[in-house]
Amino acid sequence: MRRNRTSPLILSLALLTALSCHTPTNYARAQVTDDSQPATSNVRGGQYPRVHSDSRVTFQFKAPAAQKVQLQPGGGGESGLGSRTLDMTKGDDGVWVVTTPPAVPGFHYYWFLVDGVQVNDPGSETYFGYGRPTSAVEIPEKGADYYEAKDVPHGDVRVRWYHSKRTGQWRRAYVYTPAEYDTRTRTRYPVLYLQHGAGEDERGWTNQGRMNFIMDNLIAAGKAKPMLVVMDCGYAMKAGVSVGTGQQNFMAQIGGFEEVVLNDLIPTIDTNYRTLANRKTRAMAGLSMGGFQALQIALGHLDTFAYIGAFSSPPRPGFDAKTAYNGVFSDAKKFNKSVKLLWLGAGTGEKGFYASTKAMHESLDTAGIKNIFYESKGTAHEWQTWRRDLYEFAPLLFHD
Amino acid sequence: MRRNRTSPLILSLALLTALSCHTPTNYARAQVTDDSQPATSNVRGGQYPRVHSDSRVTFQFKAPAAQKVQLQPGGGGESGLGSRTLDMTKGDDGVWVVTTPPAVPGFHYYWFLVDGVQVNDPGSETYFGYGRPTSAVEIPEKGADYYEAKDVPHGDVRVRWYHSKRTGQWRRAYVYTPAEYDTRTRTRYPVLYLQHGAGEDERGWTNQGRMNFIMDNLIAAGKAKPMLVVMDCGYAMKAGVSVGTGQQNFMAQIGGFEEVVLNDLIPTIDTNYRTLANRKTRAMAGLSMGGFQALQIALGHLDTFAYIGAFSSPPRPGFDAKTAYNGVFSDAKKFNKSVKLLWLGAGTGEKGFYASTKAMHESLDTAGIKNIFYESKGTAHEWQTWRRDLYEFAPLLFHD
Repeated sequence: MRRNRTSPLILSLALLTALSCHTPTNYARAQVTDDSQPATSNVRGGQYPRVHSDSRVTFQFKAPAAQKVQLQPGGGGESGLGSRTLDMTKGDDGVWVVTTPPAVPGFHYYWFLVDGVQVNDPGSETYFGYGRPTSAVEIPEKGADYYEAKDVPHGDVRVRWYHSKRTGQWRRAYVYTPAEYDTRTRTRYPVLYLQHGAGEDERGWTNQGRMNFIMDNLIAAGKAKPMLVVMDCGYAMKAGVSVGTGQQNFMAQIGGFEEVVLNDLIPTIDTNYRTLANRKTRAMAGLSMGGFQALQIALGHLDTFAYIGAFSSPPRPGFDAKTAYNGVFSDAKKFNKSVKLLWLGAGTGEKGFYASTKAMHESLDTAGIKNIFYESKGTAHEWQTWRRDLYEFAPLLFHD
Repeated sequence: MRRNRTSPLILSLALLTALSCHTPTNYARAQVTDDSQPATSNVRGGQYPRVHSDSRVTFQFKAPAAQKVQLQPGGGGESGLGSRTLDMTKGDDGVWVVTTPPAVPGFHYYWFLVDGVQVNDPGSETYFGYGRPTSAVEIPEKGADYYEAKDVPHGDVRVRWYHSKRTGQWRRAYVYTPAEYDTRTRTRYPVLYLQHGAGEDERGWTNQGRMNFIMDNLIAAGKAKPMLVVMDCGYAMKAGVSVGTGQQNFMAQIGGFEEVVLNDLIPTIDTNYRTLANRKTRAMAGLSMGGFQALQIALGHLDTFAYIGAFSSPPRPGFDAKTAYNGVFSDAKKFNKSVKLLWLGAGTGEKGFYASTKAMHESLDTAGIKNIFYESKGTAHEWQTWRRDLYEFAPLLFHD
């Protein structure tokens, strides 16, 4: 029996690797001779998808027995990865391959269709979107580093569990505390409540949106005030309500959220963290469905929120500033005195959302309601739009 | 144009659901007439897998065009979900179904083989294991609630990014702070460094292991001292080292971890959190590969750690107490005075690990080395074993 130091080690590790660890194997061709790099959104060691210097992306998936494999971008035809589902080509080794045209910078959901079945890419981390774990690819934006980890003080993103009386369930919120929070133990902080979109959850703003790096960089540069950012799950069914499938039950799925925010979440945060607990130090914003919720909840509770952000909020057909939101815009002078910021953002690449957001902005302008319309050039209904929203929105918070 | 309150709402939400949200659709049969419940490890609203009251589990996967669909448990033949890959049966609706025999309680990785391709279950959350996002099913253990969320004070699990000089990269650690941490701002705390297994990462102990609930419950009951628990990624390549694929490069993948722990991670934690920074208030433990690392790092640095836990550590063929770990066990009196706890755990259902752990324990006993051998009855090389390890191990920490 060998007793030197390395031999048991190697034997043990061979057992471990055989038992429970592998480098992803669904892409077998590792001979890369071009300038492409593995996407930063990949799993540790994942070689595909690879992003080329001109932002083309090469995907691979091994499925020797499949008849047809396709790459389908998320976003319903408005992805920065392209609007079309692309057929992949099978090689002799059973590996299907496709390279996209140059992609728009940002974070793009995708999946493979393997003989019609939606399958994630084992080379990609999963990100919760579309109501399920979903693959995604990060395309760097040249010259933009505001959402990168830098050598600045870093805040923590805290996973906070709390019990909701309204839903009867334990819920999980993510809470960003700025870097100084642990050392300035007598300082209290304002709070931004920040919501994800439909099909996503409380992890989205951190894992997809990189909000922590955006906030770290803004705060370190003195561009934004140190603040807490609270991200909860926008889905909340009232206790006793049941839900089946499909969009007819969508209202049930989010129907308890307003009460959860006002009666469970805010008290939890104000009890457990050193917050400044009044309306002038409380903001609510969100993207897409979360923007809808931010408008609905904050405009309905101006005693609780003074700063409001709607990033790519869905269209409100028939929007009328006189009657919308129970008439909150009907007295412009009163509204403008009360609300310190009303932000409406959209990407120029998201056609419906952009048009409706701009129309709402113009309607509010006409009604004399102070508001900011932000447009993100060239980006679709995707996270790059919302990262930019946050980067421009957060510096405007809590100056009053 | 309709202007009542609900109609634009419903139109907007219909758009949202069409665009980006759905209840998972890969299982179409929702008519459940038995006593089964969706697994708590499922995605929000996911109806399958379902766990029956006798711990059988029913899985579904929709793949109308597939020729063969199988359920494959993780664990290399020693899963609590069963040792065999099970064929699933196709219904007229293209949904493949299988119900397992009664499963062992705990957390079991699995995936589907769809015409040979490994595919995750869209109804399951993903958990990072096997080097990729992986499906899993939680089987309740009757009478065991020590890892459930209870009405006790809850600590936060903090996501902490730090830059590692040794790897040249940004790394992510998870840091559990006990509930009292934010209010007792002059108290400093001992630290347990707690590692995941091969193929997993820094998220494992929280998402799979529920360590935060275990610690919350132990601390609230006065059974464990309030402590920080730091969970890092056990993979760390030294800067400049490259890695290909396969197990021959496994050593490169973990080769930098010891230096990262000692020179990057511990200083980061001691700088950013109120720790008691000395050997008697520092423990290291881990499961499987992490147990191997805990033994290697802590036994090699008794100036840094006084408490050591190896949960299902891999076999060390030829283990000899006289020579192992550079002879650290050769002077039993000295060792026993220095090391406050040496814990070796294994499940009776993990044959190789159990036998080798017990053999190491007996060899150390013979050599006069104080150590505790813990056996988890009936559980395999899986998370229920390690949850029990932590629940029994943590109360023994930091009493000296």
